[in-house]
Amino acid sequence: MPGGPVGTAGLGVPAALERALETAGAAEVLSGYLHTWAADFLRSLRLHEESSGGAQTAPAAAEAVRQLRAAARRIGSALLTYRPLVDAAWADELSGELRRLSGTLAREYRCAARSARLLGGLHRLTLEGVGGDRAAALLERQHSLARSRAHSAALEALVSSRFHAVADAVAVLAYEVPLTPEAARDGDAHDAHDAREVLVPLADRARERLVRAVAALPPPRSRDGQGRDGPRGQETQSRRDAAWLEVRILLRHHRYAQEVLYAGAGAGPGAGAGAADASARTAGTSGTGKPVAPREPQEQAAPPEPVPESPDPRLATAGRALDRYRDAIEAADAAAAAARTPRIAPATAYALGVLHAGQRQEAEAARREFAELWDRVLNGGPGASGYAANSTEANSTEANRGADCREAEPQTL
Amino acid sequence: MPGGPVGTAGLGVPAALERALETAGAAEVLSGYLHTWAADFLRSLRLHEESSGGAQTAPAAAEAVRQLRAAARRIGSALLTYRPLVDAAWADELSGELRRLSGTLAREYRCAARSARLLGGLHRLTLEGVGGDRAAALLERQHSLARSRAHSAALEALVSSRFHAVADAVAVLAYEVPLTPEAARDGDAHDAHDAREVLVPLADRARERLVRAVAALPPPRSRDGQGRDGPRGQETQSRRDAAWLEVRILLRHHRYAQEVLYAGAGAGPGAGAGAADASARTAGTSGTGKPVAPREPQEQAAPPEPVPESPDPRLATAGRALDRYRDAIEAADAAAAAARTPRIAPATAYALGVLHAGQRQEAEAARREFAELWDRVLNGGPGASGYAANSTEANSTEANRGADCREAEPQTL
Repeated sequence: MPGGPVGTAGLGVPAALERALETAGAAEVLSGYLHTWAADFLRSLRLHEESSGGAQTAPAAAEAVRQLRAAARRIGSALLTYRPLVDAAWADELSGELRRLSGTLAREYRCAARSARLLGGLHRLTLEGVGGDRAAALLERQHSLARSRAHSAALEALVSSRFHAVADAVAVLAYEVPLTPEAARDGDAHDAHDAREVLVPLADRARERLVRAVAALPPPRSRDGQGRDGPRGQETQSRRDAAWLEVRILLRHHRYAQEVLYAGAGAGPGAGAGAADASARTAGTSGTGKPVAPREPQEQAAPPEPVPESPDPRLATAGRALDRYRDAIEAADAAAAAARTPRIAPATAYALGVLHAGQRQEAEAARREFAELWDRVLNGGPGASGYAANSTEANSTEANRGADCREAEPQTL
Repeated sequence: MPGGPVGTAGLGVPAALERALETAGAAEVLSGYLHTWAADFLRSLRLHEESSGGAQTAPAAAEAVRQLRAAARRIGSALLTYRPLVDAAWADELSGELRRLSGTLAREYRCAARSARLLGGLHRLTLEGVGGDRAAALLERQHSLARSRAHSAALEALVSSRFHAVADAVAVLAYEVPLTPEAARDGDAHDAHDAREVLVPLADRARERLVRAVAALPPPRSRDGQGRDGPRGQETQSRRDAAWLEVRILLRHHRYAQEVLYAGAGAGPGAGAGAADASARTAGTSGTGKPVAPREPQEQAAPPEPVPESPDPRLATAGRALDRYRDAIEAADAAAAAARTPRIAPATAYALGVLHAGQRQEAEAARREFAELWDRVLNGGPGASGYAANSTEANSTEANRGADCREAEPQTL
């Protein structure tokens, strides 16, 4: 956090993992990860086609969409982090499309979650009189409308020709990754560039971007919860929010970049290329994205000591704190927006004001929670250096959150 | 705090102080304290008469009122804590009148402070649009009206025949305290009941009431600041607020009870009775109520080791946290009340809702601050026992705070 020393000990690649990666080819490891998640993407898509449309199968359809988004996020993120290994134009195009798709698909879910958060907040707040009830009714009406629009948009997106092009590209990716000529050569020879030499530095860059962004964060507010922003508070708050949302995205990139490495450590040489199902198994990840225990090491590539099974689970916990942060500031914005509805009663507006403040307060609490987790994750050596300010354009775009689920630009990766 | 062991180590009477009190008469010590503060009361009253009415001398008049209230609070509190030593009917009558007077005089000041707190809160909050400005104008108008009414009420109170009766009683108190026959006898003989034997147990009762009330407090809310009160939140909140406000009053009683003892340790035998000026010096308190260093010990009563000069200063700090708590919940109530003004714009009501929530949040912060201070004060041995549930009627009355400075019942002691 700001002011403290910037350690990265808890974030680095463990030595055992690095050693395991020395015996794997960089192109194979990346291909294996992409094959796995491309297969997952296609499986989720089939699941959605089978379950959408009926009321009884709605939960299964929602779960299929959730898995589709998880796969889309991981493929897009891996293409960004390990971009030097793949055809750049193709990677940028596909990752952009996946991001857009994931955002469109997320909207309905986010809208429902925000509505639940706001109504829960109103319920917990101690609001006398009719203001609270009216505010609840207003929010419910607005969100229910937005949600059904988002649902239609998601269904339309999944039958659009634009989506079919994405699905086709992912179908190819399940069997073959468009590598750069150099990476492809290594994939054949796999002695020139091992996974450690090629992938770890790229993962380190993702980590350094995250560490630097966290170190540059404005500090969380004091515990009395009042802003100290002065007259230009609104502008300051937006800037601060944007910085925190960027950290949320960078943390996710870091986590997925690590997933590639951990999955690669489970895949010995010869695994991965050419057979999606095989690589899905050997890449060491389950269908839900949680890496599973590596299988018995193959003879010629047995790692000298156990490799950790997955990235530090505290990263996921820290990510959830940032998710809550994002949810809370968007809910606060939604409460403020609802208060601008014409012709509402003052009591309704008052309740929305209380609700807004409560959500901003929850956002502050989530920041503090992240800060504490982060301190524990870093709990190690001093100073990360070598940071290059090469935050990708995609990241800055993603930081422009859309608080209104009816109009939000896709921004979930 | 709730759940933890109830220690009182940091609150008890130090051994050196107890020893010093063995050489002083109980009646003399109490009389000395009352003489001092009665003299201070009369001096402040003269100061106010000299300075009130002119715009230039308004600050001096305000300071005189502040001192008058400080003296009234201490006299009233000492009469409650050490009631068994004085004529009960007289003490109850006078302490009730002093409490009422102090409340009336406090109203103007409290109104101004609340207005400043609310406008400062609005300024700090990040409120877009005209809602914030309109809310500020509304609050300013309401409080300015209330303040001038409170000012008139204070001036009227100070020339009322009811006040003259109080001033007469205090004037007597500056020279003679209506002791019980037994206490008066001891005062003459001053060997039967020394100050340690008589006063310390009564101070201990005040301390035990405080410790027990703090231990029974509902815990502060979690740091995310959201209430977890369920549908009956408003009622729960009022009960909780009342419990905390009672602790605020009990802490004050404890602190003043300790002041009597510390002042008594500075006053050797023979000091105190019969000469207000002399007792004012030897009682060891300055005019502002802060005990000063005891003078050189008189020959026949030199304490064997240095007596601490004053009660634990952390008590005053904890008291200020509770003052902030009280101020914040009253400001929150005032924001809610302003939002019920007929025909206000929804934007104004929204801003008041945000402001209300911000003040409730500051109240929670003050609670946490008190809890931390309290833990540090107690930082000692286990379990206080012997608590008798004899919270005085005055305390319960005081706990019924009046949030509206225009209608508030006097409740400051």
